[in-house]
Amino acid sequence: MTTIDLNSDLGEGYGAWQMGDDVAMLDIVSSANVACGFHAGDPRGLMATLEQAAARGVAVGAHVSYPDRVGFGQRNMDVAPDELRADVIYQIGALQGLARAAGTRVTYVKPHGALYNTIAQDAGQGDAVIAAIRAIAPDLVLMGLAGAPILDRARAAGLRVVAEAFADRAYTPEGALVSRRQAGAVLHDPETVAVRMVQLATTGVIQAVDGSDLHLQADSICVHGDSPGAVQMAAQIRQALLARGVTIAAFAGAA
Amino acid sequence: MTTIDLNSDLGEGYGAWQMGDDVAMLDIVSSANVACGFHAGDPRGLMATLEQAAARGVAVGAHVSYPDRVGFGQRNMDVAPDELRADVIYQIGALQGLARAAGTRVTYVKPHGALYNTIAQDAGQGDAVIAAIRAIAPDLVLMGLAGAPILDRARAAGLRVVAEAFADRAYTPEGALVSRRQAGAVLHDPETVAVRMVQLATTGVIQAVDGSDLHLQADSICVHGDSPGAVQMAAQIRQALLARGVTIAAFAGAA
Amino acid sequence: MTTIDLNSDLGEGYGAWQMGDDVAMLDIVSSANVACGFHAGDPRGLMATLEQAAARGVAVGAHVSYPDRVGFGQRNMDVAPDELRADVIYQIGALQGLARAAGTRVTYVKPHGALYNTIAQDAGQGDAVIAAIRAIAPDLVLMGLAGAPILDRARAAGLRVVAEAFADRAYTPEGALVSRRQAGAVLHDPETVAVRMVQLATTGVIQAVDGSDLHLQADSICVHGDSPGAVQMAAQIRQALLARGVTIAAFAGAA
Amino acid sequence: MTTIDLNSDLGEGYGAWQMGDDVAMLDIVSSANVACGFHAGDPRGLMATLEQAAARGVAVGAHVSYPDRVGFGQRNMDVAPDELRADVIYQIGALQGLARAAGTRVTYVKPHGALYNTIAQDAGQGDAVIAAIRAIAPDLVLMGLAGAPILDRARAAGLRVVAEAFADRAYTPEGALVSRRQAGAVLHDPETVAVRMVQLATTGVIQAVDGSDLHLQADSICVHGDSPGAVQMAAQIRQALLARGVTIAAFAGAA
Repeated sequence: MTTIDLNSDLGEGYGAWQMGDDVAMLDIVSSANVACGFHAGDPRGLMATLEQAAARGVAVGAHVSYPDRVGFGQRNMDVAPDELRADVIYQIGALQGLARAAGTRVTYVKPHGALYNTIAQDAGQGDAVIAAIRAIAPDLVLMGLAGAPILDRARAAGLRVVAEAFADRAYTPEGALVSRRQAGAVLHDPETVAVRMVQLATTGVIQAVDGSDLHLQADSICVHGDSPGAVQMAAQIRQALLARGVTIAAFAGAA
Repeated sequence: MTTIDLNSDLGEGYGAWQMGDDVAMLDIVSSANVACGFHAGDPRGLMATLEQAAARGVAVGAHVSYPDRVGFGQRNMDVAPDELRADVIYQIGALQGLARAAGTRVTYVKPHGALYNTIAQDAGQGDAVIAAIRAIAPDLVLMGLAGAPILDRARAAGLRVVAEAFADRAYTPEGALVSRRQAGAVLHDPETVAVRMVQLATTGVIQAVDGSDLHLQADSICVHGDSPGAVQMAAQIRQALLARGVTIAAFAGAA
Repeated sequence: MTTIDLNSDLGEGYGAWQMGDDVAMLDIVSSANVACGFHAGDPRGLMATLEQAAARGVAVGAHVSYPDRVGFGQRNMDVAPDELRADVIYQIGALQGLARAAGTRVTYVKPHGALYNTIAQDAGQGDAVIAAIRAIAPDLVLMGLAGAPILDRARAAGLRVVAEAFADRAYTPEGALVSRRQAGAVLHDPETVAVRMVQLATTGVIQAVDGSDLHLQADSICVHGDSPGAVQMAAQIRQALLARGVTIAAFAGAA
Repeated sequence: MTTIDLNSDLGEGYGAWQMGDDVAMLDIVSSANVACGFHAGDPRGLMATLEQAAARGVAVGAHVSYPDRVGFGQRNMDVAPDELRADVIYQIGALQGLARAAGTRVTYVKPHGALYNTIAQDAGQGDAVIAAIRAIAPDLVLMGLAGAPILDRARAAGLRVVAEAFADRAYTPEGALVSRRQAGAVLHDPETVAVRMVQLATTGVIQAVDGSDLHLQADSICVHGDSPGAVQMAAQIRQALLARGVTIAAFAGAA
C-alpha cells in the first residue's frame, strides 16, 4: 500500500493581513509548514493555525526563513552562517513554544522561499540550517527538494530527511525545477497536475518537460493554498490520490 | 544562612548595536534576564549571551516585552489579552530554543519595561502573561515587583513567583517605587545602595523615602549594567553582600 | 451647488499582502488617505497606489500612524510628543517623496487608527501632530473627526482643517461615534447609508442613534474599501450623491 | 587653493541604541551622510542629528540602504529594481521631510553598506538608484566610490556625482579597495592616514598597497566616527589638511 504526504505553506498571514485559506487547506494536507514570523506569521495568527492543525492531527513543520517580511522571504540574502544558524534556532524555538501551547508539536523543518532554494545547493548556508536543527532538536526531520544536495548533506550529518516534489511545477529531465522565468514552468490545469501526482506517488515517475520519464524519489508533495484556484487544485490532487488507493499521511507522524 | 538572587537585564544589544557589558555582568549576577527579540536582542547576539551564561552557571530568564523595538519596550501599548498571550509564548519559546542550543535552559520569566509595570497592577494583561506561562511551561517562575498584585494572581493560578527589589530605586512607605518623575527616585551612590541591599537581604527591611522602615519581602535584587558606573555599582553590591556572609544564588537554580 | 469630498484609506497592503481594492476605490473617491509605512504600505506598493491616484486626479493625503505594523496602527501607544512629532514628519516626508515621483503631491494629513482616535481628544499627542505638519509643510490640511477638539486646536495653531463624517457609523445625539462595542455602531445596509449621506451633504443633518436630528459640519465623508461589500457601499453612496446633484470633489484640490 | 570634502556616516543610532558620537563628528566633517531608517536611525534620533548638522552648516546627504536593520544594511540582498527604486525614494523623502523640519535640506545621496558596494559595479541596482534620484529630486548629487562604474552611469543619466576616497582603507594599484578579508586592508595609524589624505588632497595621488603611486580623483574623503579612536583619527586628518592649507568644504554647499 502506497503512502505519501501532502504539505502546504500555512500561517502566512500577518496581523490584519490574510494569506490563503488555512482552514480549507488543513482539511486537505497531512503536513502544515507553519511560518515562524520571519517572512510571515504573527504569534496570535500562528497560534490559531496551530490549534486548527492540532484539532485535525495534521503534522506541523517549522517554515523558517530569512528575516525579510516585506520581501516575504523570497529575496536572496547574504546571511553569515552563524547568524543563519541562530535565526533558524530562534524560529524553531518560537514555533515549538506556540505548538506546545496549541497542543501539538513541531516534527520537521522546511526552509522557506529564497532560503529553501539557496540551501538546496549552497553548502555554507545549508550546513548552518543543519547545525541549527542539530543544536535545538536533532530528531526534527529536514524537508528539502527531491534530488538536491542538501538532503545528502543533512543525512550525512545524522538528520532524517524528507524529499518533496512540487505538484504544480515542471521538471527538467535532470530532475531540477524548470525556472519560473521559462514558459511552462508552472502548471495550471488541476486535472493534469492530479494525474501527474498519482503517477509520481504510485510509480515514482513523472514526465519531464521534454516528455521523458523522470524517476523522482519524493516522500511528500507540496500543494498551494494561496488562491481559491490553488485550494481547488490541492483538493483535486487529494481526491485523485485517494481514488487510486494512495494513503495520505504525514511522513513524520501526526503530532 | 541568608541567600539572595542578583538579576540583571542582558542580551539587550541588537545587530550592530551594543548595550551594556554582558560578560562583566555575568560575573556579578546569579540570574540573567535575557531579551527575546521584541524590545531587544537578535538571535546571534542572544546566543552569545546565553553561551556566556551557561559557561558561568548563571540562571536564564525570558525577558519578554511588548513588540516595540524602537521604543525599547518602554511605551505602554494596548495589546489585547489573546495577542499578548501569544506574543509571550512566542518569545519564551524562541529563548528556550536558543538556550537549549547554548547548553542551558530558561527557568523563569521576567516581563520587561512597560509590560512589567502594567502587569504589576493590570489584571487583564497580567492574566495573559500568566496564561502564557501556563500554556508553554507551567514550571517557569514568574519574577515580579515585590508587593505587587501580580504575584498573588500568579500564585493563585498555580505559578511559582519570585519577588524582586530594585537596588537603585527609592521606595514609598507603602512599598511602591518612587516615580521617576520625582527627585530622588533613582539612587546614584554605590556605597549607599550597597548598604541598603545588605540591610534588605539580611533583615528584610529597607528605608523608605520618608525615613521610615519598610518591610519588603524580596527574593531577588535587580541591578543594572547599562553603563560603566552601573556595572561598578552592581559589583559593589555583590561584594557587600558576600562580605556580610550573604550567599548569592539563583532562586530557581542554575541551568 | 453642494460639494463634498469622499475619502478612503488606501495603500494598505504590505509586500506580498493585499488589502482592499485600491483601483476600484480610486474610481469612487476624490481623496485617498495613503498609508506611509508605519501601519501598512511598502514603498513599491505605495508608489503603485500613488500612480493610480495621480492618473485619476484623486487628491493624496498622508495617512500617518503609530509605528505598529503587526497591530495595523489600531493599538493605543504611549508615544512621547517629540517622538510622535518626528514620526509624523518622517512619514509625511516619505509619502511626499513617493508622490513627487508618481507625479502628484500630498495635500493633506489624516492620522490613522488609534492615533486618529487619540488626537481627537488628547492635546499632548494632538499638538505633536500639529507641530509636525507646521514643521514640514504648514499648507497641509489636517483631516479630523467632525466636532472633535483637535480641529479647533489645529485651526488655532494656524492650520487649515477638514472635518469628516463616517458613512457607516452611528452617531450619538452629541455628535460622537457610537462605540464599536455597542450594537448598531456600524451600519451595514448600503441603501440606508447612502440616504444618510445624501441628507448630510445636502442639509448638514444626520439622524442620531436615538432618532434625533444631529447637525454635523462635515466637509468629507469616509468610505471603506476593505471588502467587496464595502466597495459596493462606497459606489452606492457616490451614485446617490451624484443623483442628487451633489458634486464630489477633493476639498484640497486634486494634485 | 585646494578644497576637499570630509564626510562621515551619522544618525546611526536606533531608539535606545547609540552608535558613534555625532556631535563630535559634526565639528570635524563638512558633509553628514545621515541614515534614513532602513539600516539605522529612528525619526527622533535623526531629527536631533539633523538639527546639529543645521546648526553647524554641515551638508546633509541621504544615506539610503537595503531594508535590513538587524544586518545594519551590510548584507547583500537581491532586491528587484522597481522595489529598490521605491525604497530609495521613500528614504530620501523621509529624510527631506526631517531635514526641512530641522532647518536644513538634503543635498546629496550616498548609498550605504552592501548597497554601496553592489551599485559600484552592478548596473541593474545602480540604475534603480539613479532612477530614484531622478524621480524625486534630480538636483541631488550621487556620492560613489572613486573610479567605480556607477559614477559614469550616473553622469550619463544626467546626475551630478561626487567621487569619494576612504581615509582608512588600502588601495590596489588599480584603484580598488583592498578586500577587508586581506591583511592590511584597514589602516589604523592616524598619522599615516593623515599624511596619505594630505597627499591625496594636494596631489591627487595615493600610495597603493604595492607601493606604486595611484592617481585617484576624489572630491570627498570618508572618515569614521564609530569609536573614540575613529573620532581621533578623523580629527587628525582634518588638522593635517588645514595645516597644509587645504580648505574643507562640502562639495554641494552647506544647506
